[in-house]
Amino acid sequence: MLTSPKPGRALSDAMAETSRLINEAIDDLLPKAEGADAKLSEAMRYGCLGGGKRLRPLLVLQTSAQFGVGQSSAVRAAAAIEFIHCYSLIHDDLPAMDDSDLRRGRPTVHKQFDEATAILAGDALLTIGFEVLAHPATHEDPAIRCQLITALAVGAGALGMVGGQMLDLMGENQKLDAQGITRLQRLKTGELINFSCEAGAILGRASPHQRQALKAYAHDLGLAFQMADDILDATGSEDDTGKSVGQDAAAGKSTFVSILGLDQARGQAAMLAHQAAEHLNIFDERADALRELARYVVERRG
Amino acid sequence: MLTSPKPGRALSDAMAETSRLINEAIDDLLPKAEGADAKLSEAMRYGCLGGGKRLRPLLVLQTSAQFGVGQSSAVRAAAAIEFIHCYSLIHDDLPAMDDSDLRRGRPTVHKQFDEATAILAGDALLTIGFEVLAHPATHEDPAIRCQLITALAVGAGALGMVGGQMLDLMGENQKLDAQGITRLQRLKTGELINFSCEAGAILGRASPHQRQALKAYAHDLGLAFQMADDILDATGSEDDTGKSVGQDAAAGKSTFVSILGLDQARGQAAMLAHQAAEHLNIFDERADALRELARYVVERRG
Repeated sequence: MLTSPKPGRALSDAMAETSRLINEAIDDLLPKAEGADAKLSEAMRYGCLGGGKRLRPLLVLQTSAQFGVGQSSAVRAAAAIEFIHCYSLIHDDLPAMDDSDLRRGRPTVHKQFDEATAILAGDALLTIGFEVLAHPATHEDPAIRCQLITALAVGAGALGMVGGQMLDLMGENQKLDAQGITRLQRLKTGELINFSCEAGAILGRASPHQRQALKAYAHDLGLAFQMADDILDATGSEDDTGKSVGQDAAAGKSTFVSILGLDQARGQAAMLAHQAAEHLNIFDERADALRELARYVVERRG
Repeated sequence: MLTSPKPGRALSDAMAETSRLINEAIDDLLPKAEGADAKLSEAMRYGCLGGGKRLRPLLVLQTSAQFGVGQSSAVRAAAAIEFIHCYSLIHDDLPAMDDSDLRRGRPTVHKQFDEATAILAGDALLTIGFEVLAHPATHEDPAIRCQLITALAVGAGALGMVGGQMLDLMGENQKLDAQGITRLQRLKTGELINFSCEAGAILGRASPHQRQALKAYAHDLGLAFQMADDILDATGSEDDTGKSVGQDAAAGKSTFVSILGLDQARGQAAMLAHQAAEHLNIFDERADALRELARYVVERRG
């Protein structure tokens, strides 16, 4: 098993802190698994607490840190996004969708429980994401909370993440070109990564200039991340990635690798990662973890 | 085909107005079915625009009317709840859940499209429900919008509607008593009916006394409605109800009819409907449609 290159110091500190904070918050915010409804709560917890890179929470916490946002606010917003991300994985893994048995090195939710429970656990996680954002503990100003909810709903909905998943499923039957796959990935994963960076800017009442920089960073980071994912799906092992690999090729899906070839995909991912970090030039050293992250997402092995 | 008893004048006017307003709003708020993603938008529209009683929107509009809430605010809140209701029907009809082929006299969404599209259309409808509530057009005060979002998320989530659906699925393998089935139905359908009445009270900044009256009304109405549904499932025809009937018995599910027997279920439903109307005594004649509705839900044939 190859080990990923070690993240830089600022990033590895941020990753450890994110992991600790987000696991505590998820445990605290999700319903306890007890009583007659225990199965649903168990499935929600199983789908959210089995590891994962916590990329989106990291982005929320690190972008929030640029503006001195209180930690408890940032952590709640981060947990809300992670709930949405985890619901999307649970539903995407279903037999009617990507039909995946393995996720983060463990059986997927519908394999561990059953299909009905997986559908409902996803629905409940999607719902609680908005509940968490709407709560006064997330920000004292309800106008800010509504901005977060609007941005998340737009990014996660029919014209965002869900629309991207729809395009992805339809892509199994049609070849996409580089433009088509870029659009698909911008919707499927890019919109939620964008929102993860935007959340810090909303919570911190960032200036338009700062917002624009974070938006450009998120755009390039998201695309680099997805290219790296496609490269890992084509070249990695289940041991490294903790999920089923080679599925895109098996399903006849267009990916950045199938369209650009492995070398060009690697080159473009590296270029985008470099460009992402450049967008952060207006921020000081508090943005170092975000800079290191851009490099890390294209160098990781899993 | 039996025809249902004619609703009273106030109710029939309210039903016609609700139907017109809500269909317009849904058509306006949902993404247009065009371009590469047309299939998703088509499925969302199919799942929301094929008729339906529009009970929840009626409740939002009529409770809002008690407090002089602006029509455009009330209609947006009503559409948001209907999106959540329709998503829940689409997911509940899936093969892994209730496995229903027929809904409102037409093929269910997964029969008309496919399972993956039905899952995603449901997800997107759930998401847009919150997007609509968070928008400034729903209420000028963001604190009110956050209250609506919180109440909807709690009512629709793991400790509300989704939790009720989970209990319902588990109920296929275990006999429930009257208390168990009442709890199940309070969660599965009652919470969203409660919120439909609460929405008018939130939008209209109702007094605690008024809120309490509407809450009591919603509670009794919801239970009466569900008893009537069970009675229809046991005695109605597909022609009357527009959906598959006799499924509860076939699945070995406990229902109010299986526990109480048909006569007692009818008696209790009538008693609850009467009681529901009594709770509205503090309101003037503008609440007549709500009063007539309580009687109508237990007398309808479909």
